[in-house]
Amino acid sequence: MQLADLQKKLKSAKLDGYLVTRNNMFPEQDIREDENLLYKLTGFTGSAGSLLILRDKAILFVDGRYELQAPRETNPAEVDIFCTKEQSFHTWLTQNTADLTRFRLGINPWCLSAKEKKSLEINCISTISAPEFLPPLLSATPAKIFEHKIEFAGESKDQKISRIVTHIKAAKADAAFFALADSVSWLFNLRSDALPETPVLRAMALVDKNGKAWLFGNNLDSSHIKLDCPLLALNEIPAALRRYKKQRLLTDSQTTPQAITDMMDAAHIDIIPAADICQTLKAIKNPTELEGIRQAHIRDGAAVIKFLCWLEKNRFGKTEIDIVEKLHSFRAKNDNYYSESFATIAASGPNGAIVHYHPTRETNRPLDDNTLLLLDSGAQYFDGTTDITRTIALGNPSPQMVEDFTLVLKAHINLSSAVFPNETPGQVLDGFARAPLWQESKDYNHGTGHGVGCFLNVHEGPFSISRRHGQTGMQKGMVTSVEPGFYLENAYGIRIENLVEVAEASEGYLKFANLTLVPIDKRLINKYLLSDGEINWLNAYHHRVEEILSPLLTSAEKSWLQEACSPL
Amino acid sequence: MQLADLQKKLKSAKLDGYLVTRNNMFPEQDIREDENLLYKLTGFTGSAGSLLILRDKAILFVDGRYELQAPRETNPAEVDIFCTKEQSFHTWLTQNTADLTRFRLGINPWCLSAKEKKSLEINCISTISAPEFLPPLLSATPAKIFEHKIEFAGESKDQKISRIVTHIKAAKADAAFFALADSVSWLFNLRSDALPETPVLRAMALVDKNGKAWLFGNNLDSSHIKLDCPLLALNEIPAALRRYKKQRLLTDSQTTPQAITDMMDAAHIDIIPAADICQTLKAIKNPTELEGIRQAHIRDGAAVIKFLCWLEKNRFGKTEIDIVEKLHSFRAKNDNYYSESFATIAASGPNGAIVHYHPTRETNRPLDDNTLLLLDSGAQYFDGTTDITRTIALGNPSPQMVEDFTLVLKAHINLSSAVFPNETPGQVLDGFARAPLWQESKDYNHGTGHGVGCFLNVHEGPFSISRRHGQTGMQKGMVTSVEPGFYLENAYGIRIENLVEVAEASEGYLKFANLTLVPIDKRLINKYLLSDGEINWLNAYHHRVEEILSPLLTSAEKSWLQEACSPL
Repeated sequence: MQLADLQKKLKSAKLDGYLVTRNNMFPEQDIREDENLLYKLTGFTGSAGSLLILRDKAILFVDGRYELQAPRETNPAEVDIFCTKEQSFHTWLTQNTADLTRFRLGINPWCLSAKEKKSLEINCISTISAPEFLPPLLSATPAKIFEHKIEFAGESKDQKISRIVTHIKAAKADAAFFALADSVSWLFNLRSDALPETPVLRAMALVDKNGKAWLFGNNLDSSHIKLDCPLLALNEIPAALRRYKKQRLLTDSQTTPQAITDMMDAAHIDIIPAADICQTLKAIKNPTELEGIRQAHIRDGAAVIKFLCWLEKNRFGKTEIDIVEKLHSFRAKNDNYYSESFATIAASGPNGAIVHYHPTRETNRPLDDNTLLLLDSGAQYFDGTTDITRTIALGNPSPQMVEDFTLVLKAHINLSSAVFPNETPGQVLDGFARAPLWQESKDYNHGTGHGVGCFLNVHEGPFSISRRHGQTGMQKGMVTSVEPGFYLENAYGIRIENLVEVAEASEGYLKFANLTLVPIDKRLINKYLLSDGEINWLNAYHHRVEEILSPLLTSAEKSWLQEACSPL
Repeated sequence: MQLADLQKKLKSAKLDGYLVTRNNMFPEQDIREDENLLYKLTGFTGSAGSLLILRDKAILFVDGRYELQAPRETNPAEVDIFCTKEQSFHTWLTQNTADLTRFRLGINPWCLSAKEKKSLEINCISTISAPEFLPPLLSATPAKIFEHKIEFAGESKDQKISRIVTHIKAAKADAAFFALADSVSWLFNLRSDALPETPVLRAMALVDKNGKAWLFGNNLDSSHIKLDCPLLALNEIPAALRRYKKQRLLTDSQTTPQAITDMMDAAHIDIIPAADICQTLKAIKNPTELEGIRQAHIRDGAAVIKFLCWLEKNRFGKTEIDIVEKLHSFRAKNDNYYSESFATIAASGPNGAIVHYHPTRETNRPLDDNTLLLLDSGAQYFDGTTDITRTIALGNPSPQMVEDFTLVLKAHINLSSAVFPNETPGQVLDGFARAPLWQESKDYNHGTGHGVGCFLNVHEGPFSISRRHGQTGMQKGMVTSVEPGFYLENAYGIRIENLVEVAEASEGYLKFANLTLVPIDKRLINKYLLSDGEINWLNAYHHRVEEILSPLLTSAEKSWLQEACSPL
């Protein structure tokens, strides 16, 4: 598929433009390499962006992370690049179209939710549904479905379905539709090998008030598993929906593709807008999941500590990519290991200041002396998903590095040790992490925490700890990251990330309990900038790390850990 | 007007019910005593509530503050009471109406905004506009208009109008309508004596892109002032609007009465929804206003200190009402004094736990020994409005009182000393105040801070520091209260409230600068619960109070202040 061909096709399709998004029909999920339409059309490899194809040109909108990368990867004769922090798709279209009301923008209703389509319309952009103009790509290689065993999931599919049935009945509805792949994976205790770092089953589902359930997905191989509900192709959704003609169907307009709500309208279904209940049920981990996640973090912590001990003796002459491979080799030996949970960020010196950097052959840097190494990595274990960032001194850190690291540590401790009422919004907790940095007029340009699935997405909803106002507050049993940072352009990046579970502090009040067990580099701490309470927090954390992890280490590693965990 | 007569009238008016709100046509403003429809119909004197008149009964919905008071004041044979925390108007109507879609609810479009009407409709409650059924009350006593002099306002009406014109043009609109009385008072530098504690001019205004302006209000006496724009009656609004037929009119649907937007529709006006820009412009005080507010706080602080010094020697045998009168007598002697800014809360012992309590002859308590006195008061000066709460030990406080007071002080300091980015939302700052209380699983059931006008409403928008998510963030030049508290039912109430101005900390970052200058009772502080930073904050604050206010005091008062401000 060539950009030029599509541009020629626009006129005959009676379209002035066509909007291409990076995702296919599974919202909020990563895609496979051979599903990347943006890359195929433009050469752009970034993980987010949208492309507006016009008759005489094409415009790629990317966020700040890809401002430099996008022009390098694309042909300027074919593609103009705009950074969304300066010009969004909406404002560009408003400012560059003579009469917006007559502009015919083609969209693929599989790739936009009803809510996203409405947001275009609120901005006076009228859309034409043109799914055949450029169908979403779905890899031809079948993904193998496998079970997430009850010993890890802790609750059977039937028990989960019966909770959904209760929810459907409480809403006086007849059925519910689920478009999010991680909701469906959780609900059916199923996973697949479609994506390399997320074991999600890319499927949608329909559940009715009698507990009947259908799965919908293409190119799925279920030959190795006995499914106890029908698995149908996506094009069988309309027939399934027709059974619920004139009935009430719970549907999340934020996440359901417009193509699906169009099918519901065609089937004369009474759509009841409701947030996808699986998102919240899934986010609140059950006791089996929590215990699995704790155990996964013990094994993961041991692997990271073994790596850190190795690094101290072997860092000279190594590069970022060496680090990624070595860390992987330690983790891969762990019980229940399935894959990494995302591409490891090993960022040496100035690369650390590039948020979401991960090394490629082009950007690979040696581990220079007297710099910082920012290492953000994690794994998928059958019993839990991990995600940890440590910033490590290579040689002698500068006083400024130490001061900034200590500030980030204060931010980390201030949030980690907070007590707060049930359902406190993430926006409020976000401020707790930033407060110590703000005192020095410093900040970081990313969120403070994201939900983490159990052998599922390493970034999951429905809550987040960030500057954005969200609807879902913290609840007991949720798992979130705590990851404040500080970045000095062209110099270094600092981030300290632990996963924590949300536990009860007292009736009506919550606190965080640490899951991640890896020492925080004391060589980067100025203890005179810490309060007694902060020093006590760190010493208690290190004491616990040493106590739990020493038994899993060799004697050389044990002595390394003992020193790393000695009181400040 | 009798409730029974209205009930009889419902049938002939083809209504099943009628909704009576407490406000008249001026949204977000208090009303005069003779304008209180709820009181006239039911006897209820509370400051908030709504009444649903049905053919066979009447139902009064009140919030938690009035749960006990409302049944005492009303006749149970005539009025059922519901507390909105258990049952809102919406849920009551949904649950108690056989077929809500056929229920004909009469409303007065003068007393509901377009937004409030829509919120009823979203809940499937269809409304019938019936303004004649029960017109809003507007006192027959004319309110005298007077000028807020330029020496206090700092910016002329013409300068302000020209800022509005710029705003109208930027929005490609032709005119703007302002329904909020404090917006209009600020924009025209006018005030009136309509309300006893708020010098607001109760008027609406229309401003067009050429700078032409009209005021609309009834029962206003402008004989003592030369107005340079037309002042018309409310019933002349339709004629004024007709000039803008088919033109674009900026209108705030949150605040504009439905009656006005109905008039706009009738005049074929193109309504452009936009937040009332005066609210933000007014909230950001100019240098003259800020200097006036600072000076007003110096005089106000001196009056409060004189009172506290008097109280220490004269408290025995006194009651809450004695306190209110004595404090008033000190304030009233101040230069530029106009009135109190709200009814003083003087709450002794258990009365302090009743948020928004103010003493009446029925509830008046003596100042018992070994209790706390919660004193929340303020004044309107021509150059600024004040609002201060101090909690004072009467005799020997218990260790629990001291511990709780110290916690509230930590909360106060944690917010007062915060640094935060421009436009930080109030919800985030709210968490900074609550954090120290949350650590002990304690909290308070009210907001942490409200905007304060300049010789205007003591509670003003558009921002607030509260658990509610709001759209407006903090900006330099705003004035807000900082008032965390703690309340132990049937025992005592604690609140420490200062007003602060928002100042620049560094480029892009803001901090608070204290306006209120009155010592915080050290007899209630356990210094061993404070950090060094907190002790330093308190000592620096007290040092400043003493330095600025000593010159305004008698020598006896000076020694009292010296002791009250000595370092912790």
